Amino acid sequence: MADLFDKFQYIRQAHAQMVEAAGGDPLGVRVERILSPTEAEVGGRRCVLLGSNNYLGLTFDPDAIEAACAALRTSGTGTTGSRVANGSYASHQDLERQLAGFFGRRHAILFTTGYQANVGFLSAIAGKDDTILIDSDSHASIYDGCKLGDATVLRFKHNDAADLERRLRRLPAGSNKLVVLEGIYSMLGDRAPLADLVAAAKAHDAYILLDEAHSLGVLGEGGRGLAAEVGVEDQIDFLIGTFSKSVGTIGGFCVSNHPELEAVRLAARAYLFTASLPPSIVASASATLERIRTDASLRERLWRNTDIVYDGLKDLGYTVGPDKTPVIGVKMPDAEVGLVVWHTLMQHGVYVNLALPPATPQGTCLLRCSVCAAHTREQLQTVLDGFEAARAVLADQGAKVRAAE
Amino acid sequence: MADLFDKFQYIRQAHAQMVEAAGGDPLGVRVERILSPTEAEVGGRRCVLLGSNNYLGLTFDPDAIEAACAALRTSGTGTTGSRVANGSYASHQDLERQLAGFFGRRHAILFTTGYQANVGFLSAIAGKDDTILIDSDSHASIYDGCKLGDATVLRFKHNDAADLERRLRRLPAGSNKLVVLEGIYSMLGDRAPLADLVAAAKAHDAYILLDEAHSLGVLGEGGRGLAAEVGVEDQIDFLIGTFSKSVGTIGGFCVSNHPELEAVRLAARAYLFTASLPPSIVASASATLERIRTDASLRERLWRNTDIVYDGLKDLGYTVGPDKTPVIGVKMPDAEVGLVVWHTLMQHGVYVNLALPPATPQGTCLLRCSVCAAHTREQLQTVLDGFEAARAVLADQGAKVRAAE
Repeated sequence: MADLFDKFQYIRQAHAQMVEAAGGDPLGVRVERILSPTEAEVGGRRCVLLGSNNYLGLTFDPDAIEAACAALRTSGTGTTGSRVANGSYASHQDLERQLAGFFGRRHAILFTTGYQANVGFLSAIAGKDDTILIDSDSHASIYDGCKLGDATVLRFKHNDAADLERRLRRLPAGSNKLVVLEGIYSMLGDRAPLADLVAAAKAHDAYILLDEAHSLGVLGEGGRGLAAEVGVEDQIDFLIGTFSKSVGTIGGFCVSNHPELEAVRLAARAYLFTASLPPSIVASASATLERIRTDASLRERLWRNTDIVYDGLKDLGYTVGPDKTPVIGVKMPDAEVGLVVWHTLMQHGVYVNLALPPATPQGTCLLRCSVCAAHTREQLQTVLDGFEAARAVLADQGAKVRAAE
Repeated sequence: MADLFDKFQYIRQAHAQMVEAAGGDPLGVRVERILSPTEAEVGGRRCVLLGSNNYLGLTFDPDAIEAACAALRTSGTGTTGSRVANGSYASHQDLERQLAGFFGRRHAILFTTGYQANVGFLSAIAGKDDTILIDSDSHASIYDGCKLGDATVLRFKHNDAADLERRLRRLPAGSNKLVVLEGIYSMLGDRAPLADLVAAAKAHDAYILLDEAHSLGVLGEGGRGLAAEVGVEDQIDFLIGTFSKSVGTIGGFCVSNHPELEAVRLAARAYLFTASLPPSIVASASATLERIRTDASLRERLWRNTDIVYDGLKDLGYTVGPDKTPVIGVKMPDAEVGLVVWHTLMQHGVYVNLALPPATPQGTCLLRCSVCAAHTREQLQTVLDGFEAARAVLADQGAKVRAAE
């Protein structure tokens, strides 16, 4: 007899096979104790964390922690209300003003998570007469926001400005178009060829939304992201970001010069029908954003560490993503090799993210590494030693680490 | 020329008219300073909060605040990772075990918001061969979760077990069915006739999901909700809840005895592709849940206060929802009267939620009041004095407060 749960059989079997092959559950890692932004106890062993989104290592920033504790004492553990009801505190509005100032925009809107920022904004703006053009490697929250909206959704080839241009050209002149891009893609760490993509979009009067989730704090003057680095900030209509990566907590936002952004407060269901961010989260995000804006040394350390890991992995024969960024996607020849490497790294006290479908295209496997400004030289040496050991284990099994580019 | 923003014109105009009629923006209230669970400074004036979801007044619970501060110091401001990557801390798993124990279930899964709990769970379980039957007054997150899934979605008449039964009867025997209910509906405060609805669902072998967002901590032994109060807990397949109401922070969860709940961790995009709850949120939710479980006096105070407000409003001639619960929806004859009452209450230092479409059915207007265990007698007198003053203002204008039932 059919059952509601039948649909989970495939995923449960695939997961069980993965757990057996990996000698552990790569999707069920338990951080027993977090010791610092770069170290944790996992399975009774100290581990260097090389798979987080904690690019600047600010989760233990003393100012952010003290600001959060002060907000807990003065304002409580939560607002228990939506922003359009009892959940707009002065601190939420102050953080919106701070975000607008950070990015040099006139308007900013806070969401409770980054997922809800994309879901809320896209579903609200995507009307049935509109076309949304998204990169084929877009984050799940972009896909989900599009599915919740009523627009026609077209996918263009990942990071391919010529393909975007071709698709835009086929649309009726004067139709409403929104192009959705990301600064750094979360899995392989490649950067969008932003100047070309922006030129294609603007040649066809399309609005542009840029998700700087993984580039905020990482790229550009003041950590403002890829658009700032490339010099096209004034061409980006909507910039979306999250507090759960370099900012070190949770929350999402959108900034824009279009006054119509304010209408999103009345239209976005993921903004209207959810409790606002707790005051302590607002306080720590505010402290961390200010640190990002003013402390360029964090980015310097991050990029110095990125050089060490990216170049080191290449020297060891691993196939890394095309762009050198703090997100280093190490392509595995197949999932089996990926699981062996992942397991060996864990044995050597190195945690990386194992990425399999649906986070990656069908049939592919990535070890997603991410570099942190707070990684020490010694920790990075442990990381490279682990990858060297994994290569030796594979060599014993007659397998190679190199994958198709 | 058409523009992406044209769709916002209607909502902007409607909002501008509302602001003018209300003499202020009911959807743009700024809490300048929160003073306690029941009091805030709004517009330079002390206000009694009679419009939040802070049913037990636990947002300033000292244990929850200290637990959050301790977690900030030991574990940082956030995890910067998904639960399936680096974002499962021991404290997340401990809270899942605590939730399972709280509800007497074998399995529990945490989400980062209540919105994401419904969106993640429903979109994952709703396959193309399944039918989801939802109450027509369901929360936006239930609608959005259904829209993201692939199932056929049928709406039955609000709280109408006979209508649910009719719709179930028309479905093919042996087909997969999930009935989605809420314990207390968020706007009018009416309770689901749960015994009848459950009987109808089970007569047709349908699974049942019950969202206890507004009934957790409010109803039932140990605050376990409506299913516990009615004695049908063992018939509820999936119980969903949130930490942003009585628990006083943010986050969502699902508990179940079905082992298949664990597969949702591998399938729900709003679980996979979002950062996990910060350790401080987990810590305060854990402390508050334990207080809810053990301190029945909170619920006693809540219901005593509910009696005072519900009966008092009825005595003043207002049209309240059919069931006496801490959510008291006061029906207004029309939006114009609703705005006058809302404005007069604010002038008297009483904040309530103004609820207009899309939060309510088209053409309706509610003043949504919510009672808190921490409201003092004096605060409740201020509330009733405010409603009395509003009635007098309307009488001067020749308008009445009574609305159609």
